[in-house]
Amino acid sequence: MGQDKPASVRPASSVTSWDREADVVVVGYGAAGACAAIEASAAGLSVLVLERTSGGGGTSALSTGQLYLGGGTAIQKACGFEDSAEEMFRYLSAASGPGQDDEKIRLYCDNSVEHFDWLVAHGVPFKESYYGEGSYTPTDDCLSYSGSELASPYRDIAKPAPRGHTVQQDGIEAGGALMRALVAAVEATEADVLADALCETLVQDESGRVVGVVARVDQEEQAIRAHRAVILTAGGFILNKDMVARYAPLLAKCAYPAASVGDDGRGIRMGMGAGADAIRMNVGCVVLPFTVPKKLMHGIFVNRQGQRFINEDQYQTVVGEAALEHQDGRVWLILDSETYCKPFAPLRDDEPVVGETAEELERNLGMPEGSLQHTLAYFNEHAERGEDPLFHKAENYLKPLVPPYAALDYSTKNALYTVFTLGGLRTNTRAEVLDPDGEPIPGLYAAGRTTSGLAAQGYSSGLSLADGTFFGRRAGQAAKRA
Amino acid sequence: MGQDKPASVRPASSVTSWDREADVVVVGYGAAGACAAIEASAAGLSVLVLERTSGGGGTSALSTGQLYLGGGTAIQKACGFEDSAEEMFRYLSAASGPGQDDEKIRLYCDNSVEHFDWLVAHGVPFKESYYGEGSYTPTDDCLSYSGSELASPYRDIAKPAPRGHTVQQDGIEAGGALMRALVAAVEATEADVLADALCETLVQDESGRVVGVVARVDQEEQAIRAHRAVILTAGGFILNKDMVARYAPLLAKCAYPAASVGDDGRGIRMGMGAGADAIRMNVGCVVLPFTVPKKLMHGIFVNRQGQRFINEDQYQTVVGEAALEHQDGRVWLILDSETYCKPFAPLRDDEPVVGETAEELERNLGMPEGSLQHTLAYFNEHAERGEDPLFHKAENYLKPLVPPYAALDYSTKNALYTVFTLGGLRTNTRAEVLDPDGEPIPGLYAAGRTTSGLAAQGYSSGLSLADGTFFGRRAGQAAKRA
Repeated sequence: MGQDKPASVRPASSVTSWDREADVVVVGYGAAGACAAIEASAAGLSVLVLERTSGGGGTSALSTGQLYLGGGTAIQKACGFEDSAEEMFRYLSAASGPGQDDEKIRLYCDNSVEHFDWLVAHGVPFKESYYGEGSYTPTDDCLSYSGSELASPYRDIAKPAPRGHTVQQDGIEAGGALMRALVAAVEATEADVLADALCETLVQDESGRVVGVVARVDQEEQAIRAHRAVILTAGGFILNKDMVARYAPLLAKCAYPAASVGDDGRGIRMGMGAGADAIRMNVGCVVLPFTVPKKLMHGIFVNRQGQRFINEDQYQTVVGEAALEHQDGRVWLILDSETYCKPFAPLRDDEPVVGETAEELERNLGMPEGSLQHTLAYFNEHAERGEDPLFHKAENYLKPLVPPYAALDYSTKNALYTVFTLGGLRTNTRAEVLDPDGEPIPGLYAAGRTTSGLAAQGYSSGLSLADGTFFGRRAGQAAKRA
Repeated sequence: MGQDKPASVRPASSVTSWDREADVVVVGYGAAGACAAIEASAAGLSVLVLERTSGGGGTSALSTGQLYLGGGTAIQKACGFEDSAEEMFRYLSAASGPGQDDEKIRLYCDNSVEHFDWLVAHGVPFKESYYGEGSYTPTDDCLSYSGSELASPYRDIAKPAPRGHTVQQDGIEAGGALMRALVAAVEATEADVLADALCETLVQDESGRVVGVVARVDQEEQAIRAHRAVILTAGGFILNKDMVARYAPLLAKCAYPAASVGDDGRGIRMGMGAGADAIRMNVGCVVLPFTVPKKLMHGIFVNRQGQRFINEDQYQTVVGEAALEHQDGRVWLILDSETYCKPFAPLRDDEPVVGETAEELERNLGMPEGSLQHTLAYFNEHAERGEDPLFHKAENYLKPLVPPYAALDYSTKNALYTVFTLGGLRTNTRAEVLDPDGEPIPGLYAAGRTTSGLAAQGYSSGLSLADGTFFGRRAGQAAKRA
């Protein structure tokens, strides 16, 4: 039970001898760890990457390989999309709250083009192509709208542009291609990688400075000295049931954690053991995958009262969060015979509840009499005119739903709510880990899902790899000054 | 800027001499601190209570002086109400989630009668009388329904009983009477009290044991040794804007913090500095005070879409939380000429928006055409029959609303949303403070709003004084075994 071993810090005085040493010790070898290692190595520092599994990859390798990038990247330009750091900032600041970190967002937007170029220079492949709306790119194409840029209210806050940049690889899981490139880039440096090394705790000296880690290597405990910096890039905590229960109990209702073994919160707890602050620990990215095939987006979501509660063209993480947090995870997607089809993401029970009329559907769903009937009549009356006065769904998704009807159960008990945690260690724009008073803990850095990053709450796809790669780099760069 | 001074722990080795000492050092002299001091003193330990202001009281003294107690207290019996620990547990467990601490709730319910008797034995006055529904008791009466016991769904989960026990005192602020009694009880012990002593940080030895505190006394820093225990009972963090921004950004929208100067989060940060876990930091008690005069509860709340979203007879903290968290803090209370009156709790703008018809009101409120009209028609049709198929509001509050109409603006910008934090240090049933691995930090205890307590999320009035007094006592008792 690795996750249950105490993460409390070890005093440096208890370490009698060091088994290994490096200027920079990186804990975890996903995208964030790789980028940290590359930059620290480029700065002339000796680097040791510790990875608990047998090799680089982490949750990044299991992801869709999409990074949220913009402000006018080469691919945005090649595909004819205008974008600017300012429009990107406006969107992210509005969509990533409440409580978003505007300082991080600003820095990221201002440097997003440079970051894209850096990734390309380090061998990450992107195709010069536009896929379309929606975050999944089953082809090897690159650009897509991976947030709510085109939906109300964001389309009126910032000029929309597609900013999801998916790494070139056929199939949905392009994270593999990303990590192959980053691992190759690490291998081209002087950085050392030690696999099968499970970090257990930080070592801190009397002044509060983090000076190393204790890791389990080949079944033996080793003390590993970090002369300048320990960089925690060890994932989130969605696989740690106890942590989810006490910090983010709602997330426990989601069926499918998007995670790899490292996402047991150990990195976060190691930081807390050394006095770090952990923030937004209640927040998760909650994906409700209902948008493929896209015609399902013509349907309307209703709650137990038969009421609509969101414009269904908002990004699926926003819809998922609204359904889970505000509707108790109990919602239905109402469709007609033209819009109904089997959804791409499976439902436990995918047999729709049907009704020849709205009244019959309402009865079959056990909804209060007259409630869903009104919702459908109201929606249809306005959709006919291309309007959605309640939630301002975009006109291209507005079409009256005509009987007979079908309803798909998108409750947490039935649908593939996909979830990972967004809360974590509090860091500043230099990727320094802060204590509850906002003071940096000397020698300690973090990036990726071990931290609370660009998105405090509202999520757009590609932000986690953005967080990881960009602030991983920042951590690696900062180690030089440490 | 006391709240900005670092709370990071001091190593014991840095303390060259101790200025004061006691077996037990209690930080903060509200209800929790007083009860901890009484019990520790009763156990034969020397006690020193440190209070940053000039005397005992804290936020407890500013409160309504209501404690959530039940299971068959003498007053419940005298007033003819049946209750049991089991029914009380069923209610609290259902109403205090998601993420409620069933172990604490169970212990509290099982010992609630004993706790009531203890309070009485220590001079806390309660009148043998029943006031009614609603948590405010402007008279000197005792019992009231101070939660959602009578509302759906709770009335079907547990047999309702009034459990709000307000200390005997005329006027709403009976917390003064509570604290006068508890301060007198402390004065009857051997415990010492040092006022104007602002605790700044904990002192921890190399083994991780908390062995004292550093406090500012008479403008001088003093090191105060605790031979057995430091007990943190220093309030919540609603007055610390930075902490609210990073842990609980939604709460910043509430106009009125229910707090005293100590609620700046220092106690929580002192604990975190020593490696403590802090949980549910996003959660607040959000009171939307709209229930006085009670006829306002016949109105219906609607959101910007003109939809109802809750049964308005749920407790005002549940309504407040729903309005703030799920409706973006933008809601209206719709009334007719019979139910309209000036609310007791002031509104910034208390001029109602009016309409001769539902259509006119809807237009004047800027709601989508047809939305509020339907909501009113639907509500009225069923209220006529004593039914509320959407939310099951209790029949005694159901009456059709007939034109002309008036709407009161209960948005966060206009209404007196009253708020305090419910998140804090993680403690077990012995009031031991735990680290992120669930291990007790030796020598450290906490109670009251410095901790996450009985209510993880849903709140019933009287739970904070319950938390404070009961687990304050537990901390004082535990110190004997420390």
